[in-house]
Amino acid sequence: MSSHLGQIFRIATWGESHGPGLGVVIDGCPPLIALTEEDIQKELDRRRPGQSEIVSPRKEEDRCQILSGVFEGQTTGTPISIVIWNKDARPEAYSEMVTAYRPSHADYTYDAKFGIRDYRGGGRASARETIGRVAAAAVARKVLARVAPGLEIVAYVKSIRELWAEIDPTTVTLAAVESNIVRCPDAAMADQMIALIKDVRAGGDSVGGTIECVARNVPAGLGEPVFDKLEADLAKAMLSLPATKGFEIGSGFAGTLLSGSRHNDEFEMREGAVHTRTNRSGGVQGGISNGEPIFFRVAFKPTATIAKPQQTVTRDHEQTELAARGRHDPCVLPRAVPMVEAMTALVLCDHALRQAVNKL
Amino acid sequence: MSSHLGQIFRIATWGESHGPGLGVVIDGCPPLIALTEEDIQKELDRRRPGQSEIVSPRKEEDRCQILSGVFEGQTTGTPISIVIWNKDARPEAYSEMVTAYRPSHADYTYDAKFGIRDYRGGGRASARETIGRVAAAAVARKVLARVAPGLEIVAYVKSIRELWAEIDPTTVTLAAVESNIVRCPDAAMADQMIALIKDVRAGGDSVGGTIECVARNVPAGLGEPVFDKLEADLAKAMLSLPATKGFEIGSGFAGTLLSGSRHNDEFEMREGAVHTRTNRSGGVQGGISNGEPIFFRVAFKPTATIAKPQQTVTRDHEQTELAARGRHDPCVLPRAVPMVEAMTALVLCDHALRQAVNKL
Amino acid sequence: MSSHLGQIFRIATWGESHGPGLGVVIDGCPPLIALTEEDIQKELDRRRPGQSEIVSPRKEEDRCQILSGVFEGQTTGTPISIVIWNKDARPEAYSEMVTAYRPSHADYTYDAKFGIRDYRGGGRASARETIGRVAAAAVARKVLARVAPGLEIVAYVKSIRELWAEIDPTTVTLAAVESNIVRCPDAAMADQMIALIKDVRAGGDSVGGTIECVARNVPAGLGEPVFDKLEADLAKAMLSLPATKGFEIGSGFAGTLLSGSRHNDEFEMREGAVHTRTNRSGGVQGGISNGEPIFFRVAFKPTATIAKPQQTVTRDHEQTELAARGRHDPCVLPRAVPMVEAMTALVLCDHALRQAVNKL
Amino acid sequence: MSSHLGQIFRIATWGESHGPGLGVVIDGCPPLIALTEEDIQKELDRRRPGQSEIVSPRKEEDRCQILSGVFEGQTTGTPISIVIWNKDARPEAYSEMVTAYRPSHADYTYDAKFGIRDYRGGGRASARETIGRVAAAAVARKVLARVAPGLEIVAYVKSIRELWAEIDPTTVTLAAVESNIVRCPDAAMADQMIALIKDVRAGGDSVGGTIECVARNVPAGLGEPVFDKLEADLAKAMLSLPATKGFEIGSGFAGTLLSGSRHNDEFEMREGAVHTRTNRSGGVQGGISNGEPIFFRVAFKPTATIAKPQQTVTRDHEQTELAARGRHDPCVLPRAVPMVEAMTALVLCDHALRQAVNKL
Repeated sequence: MSSHLGQIFRIATWGESHGPGLGVVIDGCPPLIALTEEDIQKELDRRRPGQSEIVSPRKEEDRCQILSGVFEGQTTGTPISIVIWNKDARPEAYSEMVTAYRPSHADYTYDAKFGIRDYRGGGRASARETIGRVAAAAVARKVLARVAPGLEIVAYVKSIRELWAEIDPTTVTLAAVESNIVRCPDAAMADQMIALIKDVRAGGDSVGGTIECVARNVPAGLGEPVFDKLEADLAKAMLSLPATKGFEIGSGFAGTLLSGSRHNDEFEMREGAVHTRTNRSGGVQGGISNGEPIFFRVAFKPTATIAKPQQTVTRDHEQTELAARGRHDPCVLPRAVPMVEAMTALVLCDHALRQAVNKL
Repeated sequence: MSSHLGQIFRIATWGESHGPGLGVVIDGCPPLIALTEEDIQKELDRRRPGQSEIVSPRKEEDRCQILSGVFEGQTTGTPISIVIWNKDARPEAYSEMVTAYRPSHADYTYDAKFGIRDYRGGGRASARETIGRVAAAAVARKVLARVAPGLEIVAYVKSIRELWAEIDPTTVTLAAVESNIVRCPDAAMADQMIALIKDVRAGGDSVGGTIECVARNVPAGLGEPVFDKLEADLAKAMLSLPATKGFEIGSGFAGTLLSGSRHNDEFEMREGAVHTRTNRSGGVQGGISNGEPIFFRVAFKPTATIAKPQQTVTRDHEQTELAARGRHDPCVLPRAVPMVEAMTALVLCDHALRQAVNKL
Repeated sequence: MSSHLGQIFRIATWGESHGPGLGVVIDGCPPLIALTEEDIQKELDRRRPGQSEIVSPRKEEDRCQILSGVFEGQTTGTPISIVIWNKDARPEAYSEMVTAYRPSHADYTYDAKFGIRDYRGGGRASARETIGRVAAAAVARKVLARVAPGLEIVAYVKSIRELWAEIDPTTVTLAAVESNIVRCPDAAMADQMIALIKDVRAGGDSVGGTIECVARNVPAGLGEPVFDKLEADLAKAMLSLPATKGFEIGSGFAGTLLSGSRHNDEFEMREGAVHTRTNRSGGVQGGISNGEPIFFRVAFKPTATIAKPQQTVTRDHEQTELAARGRHDPCVLPRAVPMVEAMTALVLCDHALRQAVNKL
Repeated sequence: MSSHLGQIFRIATWGESHGPGLGVVIDGCPPLIALTEEDIQKELDRRRPGQSEIVSPRKEEDRCQILSGVFEGQTTGTPISIVIWNKDARPEAYSEMVTAYRPSHADYTYDAKFGIRDYRGGGRASARETIGRVAAAAVARKVLARVAPGLEIVAYVKSIRELWAEIDPTTVTLAAVESNIVRCPDAAMADQMIALIKDVRAGGDSVGGTIECVARNVPAGLGEPVFDKLEADLAKAMLSLPATKGFEIGSGFAGTLLSGSRHNDEFEMREGAVHTRTNRSGGVQGGISNGEPIFFRVAFKPTATIAKPQQTVTRDHEQTELAARGRHDPCVLPRAVPMVEAMTALVLCDHALRQAVNKL
């Protein structure tokens, strides 16, 4: 029981990289939400590869189909099943995975856990698995539009290797993020990032970086202490994404360098409402949203699949050398931006519905 | 439904800082595990305040009592209820919390969420809430001793503000951690940390830092992709602790500065088993343990409660000034070390039991 | 993970018959519900033994104590922990249970499942375990009073062995139920039932029967197809009570004797609302309440503990004879009436809260 | 969150009667179980209509497709997605459902709950929804074959209206059940039942009855008191099936007519193992299987859809008359037999996996 997320808006994803398809079942979506395949498709289109010269050239059409739970354009309150068929599978490109464990991939650990593994393109461990999440998140966004009107989620590339962008989370827009292929709204830095990624790919190598995400106009009161604190569920959601190594909210690790008197967010009244003067809390205090922007950063390691040859062992415990063929991303971050947004939407939607019971 | 954790080894904690007591109910503990109150007490004793000159001088006796689920010294497979009575409550010390929202505390957000709040000592949002977790983790450790013999969990203070210790996670011992009051096994740095904390307290202020934790001899195969990846559940567990702002595993945020060819952990055979040459993965690949040491770091913000006066607003939206009285920790990290270990034990125990189904 | 019930109003019970105490933790109770120990005590008092000449003469004081989640007389939205201490334990009365498996009890199956068993008074398998349920249900009733005003739950003894009472579920009152010690609101039949129970007890034997329960003024719309249908969750709740062997709702088993044209409940408008002319559905259609009275019956087997000697085997597989000593109920039904009401309240409360999400 | 069942072997079903298809996602299936579409297809074929002259003449091909979780003929431990496409949909046959609430159907209650309803053929409330359950149960049977070898589940029609069959649950075989179209292994009674059903259909009416189910060679120790008792989970599973009104296990309602000394199952040693001399417990004591055959009965009401005209109201609260067109079963029981088996397999499989933790 591992592919379920959420308490009320509960999703179950399924599918492997090179099987017939992938998908998700959403149970617990409220009724009477307008929903079309196009709502979902536009989010899938942001996620899929082949969109630019710096990501994998795979051509995944990724057309979604709604199989249940929607009637005459509205959700009915029953489970929503969404499928995306695999079209551009080329299993032969992955023949080296049959026996050799790719370094820093999940090949060895899946074998250790299950004693069997669908080696075609990484199987369930492929980043292609996130399609189901993104599809579900498109529905979550529609629900949020009803239960938390005005709520906005914007993620963007904050850094690639040592290149850090300057971005104001309180004002950044989706349009600015989408204005370049690296999805970094700092245009000058974006150019440098793109050059770096091209350079690294030419060398058969890969790079990582950080993605920052902001959620604005989140109602105060979301989050369920003591275990389902909002930042705890966000951290879990982010660390469940492939290639992630870290999560920090608000002041994060850098906040450990401040004294308490500098770090604390004093309260004040502003436009008739309680606000904090600063926002080192990152919009969450004691595990519950306080109405300020929620912002956090996620660390993505450099892509594990590289063209350079590496040492490894086979399933039969023989030493061997491996060099990736196939079509890979030298940097996952541009495509991970919509995944971070998706996980944020799923967490916020579930918590917004959970909060309903406290308002009865 | 917010105070539950775990899928099989499932805990439900309860209790407020100044109510009659706190506790936990463990449902799903396997039978025939030897368990005494002393097993639990020794972990609680590491957690409680009043142990040294650098932590809160509150005298919390924190004696635990097992109320069910243990018979003639062994678990019976039925729910284990553990209670710890509150003894040293002084509600009058917290009178200023009745109306004023303490900056960077959960006072405002609990009110926003529930419309009511037990203001005595922070109520459910007090770090005292973690007693139930630590008690449950003492049981989890006993279970792990059976199902994953040799597994060790050691946490320690890695940094206080800008002071960083040098510690080798593959060899660090509990004895070294416990050898000084700041729980930093780098003795020279520990002295500096203690001096810093005393200094900060004298100034009515507070400091934060990072805790590192290592789990050694974890069997390969623990973790449940795609959502309940081991690092995802560890991240959630850590971010559910009070005062945490970040989590990183293995290479973490620093890993984003390496190229893929430098970052990848190549496999090799060692003593007849598959091992990685390096461990930037932090013992987890694709969400599943690979048998290498699992290590991660957690960022703790400076304690929000400080003696220095701060601006804030009241429940009635009046501007006011607040300076903490009561007995507080200038630095939560020494006492948070056993909490980090506890959450690690709870996550690993649950995942070890979950993995049983794959071995049938 | 076996002692949890409910999705939103989620309870975790714990405790053995002869341990220090029993209790329950309620997670997910909405805030701002007025709640006192007296609210709970009055339900516990209906459940406890020693109330009349036809039930067990055990003197269980069963005083409850609220340990958390309530502040200044109101729920706070945090977990509510309730404990009831065991006072009148006489473990020596159960010495024969140490080795011999009592027929039609859970002694053998607990050993088969867990390899260990708290034999004192049945341990976790004792009907005393239901205290936690009744305590939690007292809270559920308070929640229902807010979210489903006017909702009434009344259970009563419908039959003892072959003695069947005539009772109109649409009008029966709690006062009528409580007007005699067998809790059968058909006064003439109640006298016969009491005589039968006394007679049976004198012979060292026991009897069973059926309890009927009605819930009136339940809002239409409760129940969650396809698995958490309202009747499915009621059936589970009832069959989780000790000594139950059957459940039927509305027309039940007798409904199988009618043709469809006789059995169907035609719709009509009444007082401006949709109603059914008959109620063979028992207030639930397609797993969802339709606003008509919900009524169902539960079969309770004759008490397994009897004074007459019976053949059995020991833990060491020796044949032996066993005759109960100790203080037992010759008929569990009078005391099971509040248990049936309690389980009904727990199910309806959880479903009423679950339905909130469909009204956002 | 309503279409999920199971704690470890967890299924999520989806789909409406006249949408593109129906299906199920199974999460938590152990790896290395041989599984083909044919394994599933043969169970679906038993469930589908159009098989005989006494059931609905709808021609539903019901071909299943496995979309994930199986690789080279074996389960991989990842989610198994199964889809069955709808082929023979004729929405125009159900035009009367658009506005009129069919008596004793879920039309009115779905509207009351969700404010919207897919009226085509009953939508999610159609018995066609059980396809996903039957498909998942085919997988559960394969798992049971590994973890509980020799376990057999046989269900059969015990009664149609007032016609009761004589069948010995300890010896009845699947072959005997399948030997006639009413699925009643008492051949003489089967002929009478078939004649009755034909007669009733000719009159535009319908009949109900009871199905009995036996599970043999169930290991002792399955079931999780206090709430997830084996009979409680079976009761819930059965009452979640469409058209069910009652459940009884072992002696059931009739057991209330016996005295305790007659009802109790004495223990004895037989072939070196603990057995009961009688089996009024129905194979479950204290919520845990005791190794004896588990047997229970389920009451099915007469089919609600009948050709005879009935009074009802419309969505707009107008009185109207309704007579079913379309293709309907005059008696659901023959087709419900594999559904009862399926739900039994799902419950036993989940509990068999849950019990693994007690054997570590």
